[in-house]
Amino acid sequence: MIERILCLFSVLVIAMSAIVAQAAVDPLPSWNDNAPKKAILTFVEKVTEQDSPTFVPPPERIAVFDNDGTLWAEHPMYFQLFFALDRVKTLSPKHPEWKTQEPFASLLKGDVKQALAGGEKAILEIVMATHAGMTTTAFEKIVGDWIATAKHPKTGKLYTDMVYQPMLEILTHLRSNDFKTFIVSGGGIEFMRPWTEKVYGIPPEQVIGSSIKTKFEMRDGKPVLVRLPEINFIDDKAGKPVGINSHIGRRPVAAFGNSDGDLQMLQWTTAGPGMRFGLIVHHTDSEREWAYDRKSHIGRLDKALDEAGAKGWTVVDMKKDWKLVFP
Amino acid sequence: MIERILCLFSVLVIAMSAIVAQAAVDPLPSWNDNAPKKAILTFVEKVTEQDSPTFVPPPERIAVFDNDGTLWAEHPMYFQLFFALDRVKTLSPKHPEWKTQEPFASLLKGDVKQALAGGEKAILEIVMATHAGMTTTAFEKIVGDWIATAKHPKTGKLYTDMVYQPMLEILTHLRSNDFKTFIVSGGGIEFMRPWTEKVYGIPPEQVIGSSIKTKFEMRDGKPVLVRLPEINFIDDKAGKPVGINSHIGRRPVAAFGNSDGDLQMLQWTTAGPGMRFGLIVHHTDSEREWAYDRKSHIGRLDKALDEAGAKGWTVVDMKKDWKLVFP
Repeated sequence: MIERILCLFSVLVIAMSAIVAQAAVDPLPSWNDNAPKKAILTFVEKVTEQDSPTFVPPPERIAVFDNDGTLWAEHPMYFQLFFALDRVKTLSPKHPEWKTQEPFASLLKGDVKQALAGGEKAILEIVMATHAGMTTTAFEKIVGDWIATAKHPKTGKLYTDMVYQPMLEILTHLRSNDFKTFIVSGGGIEFMRPWTEKVYGIPPEQVIGSSIKTKFEMRDGKPVLVRLPEINFIDDKAGKPVGINSHIGRRPVAAFGNSDGDLQMLQWTTAGPGMRFGLIVHHTDSEREWAYDRKSHIGRLDKALDEAGAKGWTVVDMKKDWKLVFP
Repeated sequence: MIERILCLFSVLVIAMSAIVAQAAVDPLPSWNDNAPKKAILTFVEKVTEQDSPTFVPPPERIAVFDNDGTLWAEHPMYFQLFFALDRVKTLSPKHPEWKTQEPFASLLKGDVKQALAGGEKAILEIVMATHAGMTTTAFEKIVGDWIATAKHPKTGKLYTDMVYQPMLEILTHLRSNDFKTFIVSGGGIEFMRPWTEKVYGIPPEQVIGSSIKTKFEMRDGKPVLVRLPEINFIDDKAGKPVGINSHIGRRPVAAFGNSDGDLQMLQWTTAGPGMRFGLIVHHTDSEREWAYDRKSHIGRLDKALDEAGAKGWTVVDMKKDWKLVFP
């Protein structure tokens, strides 16, 4: 008899310690106990409460995250642009004509500002010269090599070390509550996919971004996909709901962004029926990161900040709400 | 002591009965014990053997399936075309001009052959007139209503009852071995998504197909996506690897098709390193389904059948290899 009780007792202890362990762990330890942290925890609680009217079945638990300025930093300019500039330097020996041809000439002299003075046209030329013309497999390796070694000019960190620890905790908390997490970024889809699984736990099939066209070809009897110098899709502003619909095919229940580029994604997500969640990361911390909003050229946050109040979206004050920024 | 032994014994019995239950169940009961069944089971065994050189980690276990002719029937014509024809009839009161305008005039007289005599141009006109001009939400409802009620002209069955039971078993077997299963179809992505989760267990975010463009708009202060009468992407032939790359971002390890429209998908999938699997459903059963291959207008299987031999892809002889066709 005593053995039987001991047997039952062991089972109970194991079961209870699991429950206790779960209750004791704060899923968002890098967040101060302010309103945003409470809003996130409450939202996840409500949509996972089995018999509640706010319950959302697991297959519909889709959460979308902007990348630049929401999951990792974006100043003094988008990290993908640093990648493109490094590529121009690497490729320049094969392009003697770049010495006199803008925007490449200025870039090679180190004058990034002058190079980008040509606006969108200049950026497009740089992107096409550096992102197209190779196979998808070759490009994946180029990105993988760069992201493993290149350092941010101000912090000296690897770019993948400039991800936001508090946002990583949200990703994990959502996934441990049966959410599927997606990236929906204006950045290049093929620029993100080589590293998002390792850094964010987001597999390539859950990454949505801007893209250039690709073409299927046989080379020496082997199939390849070649990246063409032609825009396929711009996943920004009104493009974000289009990209979401194309890749996911159902409306997310939660959206996380930081700029006016995310406004339509937040509108689309939170306009659905039932419980919804919208969050904006407001960059207010000039010491630990950068402070910018309505007048910034990169990651401008103006209309979306106004609309957040009216729509009840959560606005994160980076300086007050985050215990730490980078891991 | 005896109690302790009993306690351990109960645990053992429970564990063993689970193992026995698993071993006793045939995951592919609708397949005859021929080579294709063995090839599928062996492939799944090999890629899931933890310490084997053929092991594939779960995140890379991606399997892609064509839809028309691979997961459900496609004769006497693609089921989406029946949907389009029904839509023409439904919409005709609002389009008096269709009475004299081809291809609509012939369609409304019931002469499908004459209507489709205009080839791709005629089909495109029918598709645009019936698939565009509404919001994505409205179209989802239209498809959902149709698929729940429309019947196949020959069998009198619901179209979703004309799915292939043996293929459903493959889907389930792969998923229970940590595969993610995707549809990669020439059919319309938004035509499939409303029902694939229920019928195949494939959620909308794992459906890839042809698409028309959509546009984000605010209507009465509410965001909508409007379907435009303009082709966005054709997910067929050389388009399939492009669609796979765009949506999944990594190369599948297994591909299932039935026609030359799947040739490039099979080439792309099986050209990757490590263990790969390619399968072609050969329609050989004129009694239980249809028999067609090299000369068929719908689902022509010619080049891919030749290449299957050279590449070692599994060719399923529907008549000999399937115990039953429809559930």
